[in-house]
Amino acid sequence: MGRLIYVTGGARSGKSRFAQQLAEQQPGDLLYIAPAQVLDPEMADRVEQHRLARGERWTLLEEPLQLAERLAQIADGKSALLLDCVTIWLSNLFFHFDEEQELIIAAVERLTSLVDSLPAPLYMVSNEVGSGIVPENAMARSFRDLAGAVNQQLATAADEAWLVVSGLPLRLK
Amino acid sequence: MGRLIYVTGGARSGKSRFAQQLAEQQPGDLLYIAPAQVLDPEMADRVEQHRLARGERWTLLEEPLQLAERLAQIADGKSALLLDCVTIWLSNLFFHFDEEQELIIAAVERLTSLVDSLPAPLYMVSNEVGSGIVPENAMARSFRDLAGAVNQQLATAADEAWLVVSGLPLRLK
Amino acid sequence: MGRLIYVTGGARSGKSRFAQQLAEQQPGDLLYIAPAQVLDPEMADRVEQHRLARGERWTLLEEPLQLAERLAQIADGKSALLLDCVTIWLSNLFFHFDEEQELIIAAVERLTSLVDSLPAPLYMVSNEVGSGIVPENAMARSFRDLAGAVNQQLATAADEAWLVVSGLPLRLK
Repeated sequence: MGRLIYVTGGARSGKSRFAQQLAEQQPGDLLYIAPAQVLDPEMADRVEQHRLARGERWTLLEEPLQLAERLAQIADGKSALLLDCVTIWLSNLFFHFDEEQELIIAAVERLTSLVDSLPAPLYMVSNEVGSGIVPENAMARSFRDLAGAVNQQLATAADEAWLVVSGLPLRLK
Repeated sequence: MGRLIYVTGGARSGKSRFAQQLAEQQPGDLLYIAPAQVLDPEMADRVEQHRLARGERWTLLEEPLQLAERLAQIADGKSALLLDCVTIWLSNLFFHFDEEQELIIAAVERLTSLVDSLPAPLYMVSNEVGSGIVPENAMARSFRDLAGAVNQQLATAADEAWLVVSGLPLRLK
Repeated sequence: MGRLIYVTGGARSGKSRFAQQLAEQQPGDLLYIAPAQVLDPEMADRVEQHRLARGERWTLLEEPLQLAERLAQIADGKSALLLDCVTIWLSNLFFHFDEEQELIIAAVERLTSLVDSLPAPLYMVSNEVGSGIVPENAMARSFRDLAGAVNQQLATAADEAWLVVSGLPLRLK
């Protein structure tokens, strides 16, 4: 039921595919939660292709900010929920809350505290962004610190955690 | 015989040394495949020092682009082949094919499909480049995406895969 | 007694907290070694808050450069020593020695060769900085190479080594 499964990795590490395969091991209807905002026709086209590639078991929820609120309404009847990805959601929150770290952490906390009451496991895909050289850009440094703090928050709350490297999973927890 | 062993890690993580030690466990003649292009006397000097440090069991093949074609000709009689590193080769392909991802993926595919017919195991060293903050430079983002996709392609095809961190190996597969 | 425990991870990966928890498993007095230089009142305030948060078992040693020399004088009577973090110390050495890699490696060597004679285990926190895209800035590339070389040097000398990802430890050694 309400388990949290956390999957992290670098850009193009295969983390999304791995998390999707985990979610698809559940029988029944699946919910794909996309926080990315569709800003132009090219992106709309790419989103549509991804939706078709996932196949008929998946329903798509597009929600840039209010994930906890929307999930509570829509999760009923689903057998797995996949949030792809946390880092896009964080960047939406980062601009929406004008970089106020406490408000962002509270929004993440509302989502993790919801897990127990969800009718299905929640799979979360996140990004590793803190293993390069310190960025010269102050906003990039601030976002990097936030993303690291939230990754710790999610992995701590998770029942199961994975690091994906070159498409291969390493169990963290 | 034709096994593929994949070794990845960050810059100066010790991945090359680890892969070389694995290859040197094979008895007999060894082939070092360097895709880096020698562009000035300082680099020529460094290449020569590395060649001497590897010792007499190693032969050097310098080939920036046509790896599959050259390997098929030259691997005979060798007991291990070491490609160091994939990421330099990719950056050569990236500029040669004018960032055309499909042509690059096809060149990599020609190399991995050759493995079964090689007379010796092929060790490949690659770089993790996707765990920092998103680069501001569009070409850097494009290369990062390509490198991640190719790392997945190679690790999927590999019989054995390792992540090296601070000189220490973690088995991925 | 004189054991070296190495902990690495990306920015905000939870590596400091993990190393501190390991050190606090030792009974008795603990020494926190901070190479960061306090440059303004805001930072002084943050340092003071961290000091209070660590609690009464911890003594603070602030030393930007001469770690081996100061440790030999001050470690007596302590049951654990925590250096947080190596990468700040390296960046101090990098500027102090004008990027001269050999002098920096020798300073690190003086520290690791001291471990056997220390009266307590030394925990070292370091940063992964080599898993992003190649930095455009030449000094950043040079520092990245140095940090990777030193991480290998420390992990090789260590009796125990860990990678922390999203707050969760992976044993390297």
